[in-house]
Amino acid sequence: MPSTPALSASSAGASFDKTTIERRAMRPDDVEIDIKYCGICHSDVHQARDEWGGSIFPMVPGHEIAGVVTAVGADVNRFSVGERVGVGCMVDSCGECEYCVAGEEQFCVKGNVQTYNGREYDGTPTYGGYSRQIVVKDRFVVHIPDSLELQDAAPLLCAGITTYVPLKHWGAGKGTKVAVVGMGGLGHVGVQIAAAMGAEVTVLSHTLSKKDDGLRFGAKEYCATSDRESFKKLRASFDLILNTVSADFDINAYMRLLRVDGTLVTVGAPPAPYQVHPFSLIGGRRSLAGSAIGGLPDTQEMLDFCAEHGVKPAIELIGADAVDGAYDRVVASDVRYRFVIDTATIG
Amino acid sequence: MPSTPALSASSAGASFDKTTIERRAMRPDDVEIDIKYCGICHSDVHQARDEWGGSIFPMVPGHEIAGVVTAVGADVNRFSVGERVGVGCMVDSCGECEYCVAGEEQFCVKGNVQTYNGREYDGTPTYGGYSRQIVVKDRFVVHIPDSLELQDAAPLLCAGITTYVPLKHWGAGKGTKVAVVGMGGLGHVGVQIAAAMGAEVTVLSHTLSKKDDGLRFGAKEYCATSDRESFKKLRASFDLILNTVSADFDINAYMRLLRVDGTLVTVGAPPAPYQVHPFSLIGGRRSLAGSAIGGLPDTQEMLDFCAEHGVKPAIELIGADAVDGAYDRVVASDVRYRFVIDTATIG
Repeated sequence: MPSTPALSASSAGASFDKTTIERRAMRPDDVEIDIKYCGICHSDVHQARDEWGGSIFPMVPGHEIAGVVTAVGADVNRFSVGERVGVGCMVDSCGECEYCVAGEEQFCVKGNVQTYNGREYDGTPTYGGYSRQIVVKDRFVVHIPDSLELQDAAPLLCAGITTYVPLKHWGAGKGTKVAVVGMGGLGHVGVQIAAAMGAEVTVLSHTLSKKDDGLRFGAKEYCATSDRESFKKLRASFDLILNTVSADFDINAYMRLLRVDGTLVTVGAPPAPYQVHPFSLIGGRRSLAGSAIGGLPDTQEMLDFCAEHGVKPAIELIGADAVDGAYDRVVASDVRYRFVIDTATIG
Repeated sequence: MPSTPALSASSAGASFDKTTIERRAMRPDDVEIDIKYCGICHSDVHQARDEWGGSIFPMVPGHEIAGVVTAVGADVNRFSVGERVGVGCMVDSCGECEYCVAGEEQFCVKGNVQTYNGREYDGTPTYGGYSRQIVVKDRFVVHIPDSLELQDAAPLLCAGITTYVPLKHWGAGKGTKVAVVGMGGLGHVGVQIAAAMGAEVTVLSHTLSKKDDGLRFGAKEYCATSDRESFKKLRASFDLILNTVSADFDINAYMRLLRVDGTLVTVGAPPAPYQVHPFSLIGGRRSLAGSAIGGLPDTQEMLDFCAEHGVKPAIELIGADAVDGAYDRVVASDVRYRFVIDTATIG
C-alpha cells in the first residue's frame, strides 16, 4: 500500500504532527490523486477538537481537496492521468438506494462515507486532504474546470456546494431577493453564487466591517444585525435567507424578514435549538429549512457554474506549520475568508 | 340599518346572550345573506375567552357561515337572490396589493378584515355568523355547490380551507405519503381532503380512540403518538406532515418522520415556541412551515373540490341554547367533529 505524508492530530485538540499514512491499494474504480491544495473548513476545527463528539483519532482532516490525477483503475474512464480534479466531503455511498441513484449521495440511506473522521464500509478509518496523496472511488471525484485555479477550487468543494445547493433548490435567481447571513468562509462564497444566479443579494452581518468586500462579492446591500433598525427596515423583504452562521440567534427576528412564502434555510448549526414561534411560520406561510452539502452531479455543476461566472473564494494560502495557528484564527473569525494549505509543505 | 338576532358575549368568557345587532345598509357591492348555519371553530373559543388578547366586546363569533342570498347591491353580478352561499374568515381586504390582486387576500399588506372580532377599515367592529343575517362585500362571498348540504358546507369555510391550502401548496397527491397530526375539527377534514387528492394518508393521534373514523375518512394507517414505537416505525416515512394540533409537542420527533425534502406544516399554534434542533432540518433538507386559511379563489376551489369528492365534515347540529356547553366540549375535545349552530334557533 502506498504511503503519503500527512498532517495528523493524535487526540482532541492536539497540535498537528507531520507523519505518514497509508492509502489503500488501487481498486479498478479508484482514482489516485496528488493533492495540491486543501481548504480548512470550520468543521475541521470542530472535529479535530472533538466538539461534536465521536471523533476518530488519529485524525487527518480535510474535505476541500484539489489536485492532479496520477493513476486510474482499470474500470475508470471519466478521468485520466494529469487531469485536475477535486474531492469533497464524501468518498463513498451505497450507490443503490433511491438517493444514490438520483445523484443525491449525501442522503444515502446506508449512510455515505465521509472523506475524513469517517469509516469505510469495511471499518477502515478515512483520512482527509491534509496530505500529499489520496485514493478515491471515481464516482466521488469531480473535474476542475480549466479557468479555476486549483487553490481557488479547493474551498468550493465544501463551502461552494454547501451554499450552491440551497440557493438552487429554493430558487435564487432573477427577480428574487436573497439575504446571506454571515460573511465567513461559507457566506462570502454564497453571496457570489447568489449574485451570479441573478438574485438581488443583501448581506446580514454582525457589523459593517466587511461591507466593502460584500459589495465587491456582488451584494447590493450590506446591513448590520447588531443594529436593530436593520430588522425594521428589512421586514418582509426576502424570498430566501441563507443562514451560514452557527451561533445562536433570534430566529423569529429573521423569519420576519421573509416575504410571504419565503424560506430561511440554515447551513449553520447553532448548538441550541431554534426557538421558533408558530406565528413566525403561520403568518406568511413561511418555512424554516436546513441543507447540507450536495450530491456529486450538483458538485460538478457548481464547479462549472463558478468557473463560468468567475466565482472564487478569497483565500489565504498557508504552509503546514501554520495550520495550528490558522485553527485559532478560524475560531476568532480572523480570516478573509478561507485558509488553504499548500500541501507541498507537508513533507 | 337592518337589525338581526345574534348570540353575543358581553365580556371575556361570559355566556352568550340572545340579542339584536345591526348590519350595515347595503352598498353597491354588498350581498345580504340569510345565515342558516354557522360552525363553531376552536378559535371562536379562544377569542370569546380572550385567550389571545385584544378581543373586542361585545363579540358575536362565527366565521363558518352558510346561508342564502336575500338581496344584492347594484354592482353585484356574481350572485343573485336565492343562491346558496358561504362566508369564511375574512370580509374585506385592500383589494389593491400584490396579494389581493393574486387572490391571496389572507396576505393583504394592509391587513384583511376578520369576519368577527375585527374592525372594518372605518373602525366599525365586525360581528360574525352566530346571527340570522349578515351583509358582506361580494368578493368575500363564495358559491356553495348544489351537492353540499348547507350545514356541511359551513365548517369547510374555515376547517376546509385551512387544511386544503397547505395540502395543495406542498403537493399532496398521488404517490405522496401524508400524515395528519390530530383528528379534531381540522384534522378530520384534512384527512378526507388529502385522501381525495390521492395521497396515502396516515393519522397521528394521541390514542387510537378515533381509529375507525380515521379509516372511514380515508386514512390508510392510524397510529398513536402516545406509543413511542410509532415514531420508530414511521421514521423517514412522509413527504408532508400536516399538524392540526395546538398543544406543545416534541417537534424534533415529528421532523424525523419526514423523508428527504419533506415538510412539516403547522396550522395549529401551540403556546410555546417549537424547539427545533438545526440537525432536524439539515439532515434531510427538511422544512418546518406554517399556513393559515386561504384566499377567495382557493376557498371556492376547495368547496368545489369537496363537493366533487364527497368530502364533508362530521357535524353535531346544535341550537343557540347549547353553545355555551358546546364551548366546554370543544375545549375537552368532546365533539365528533364539529359543532354547527342552527341559526334559526337564535331568535
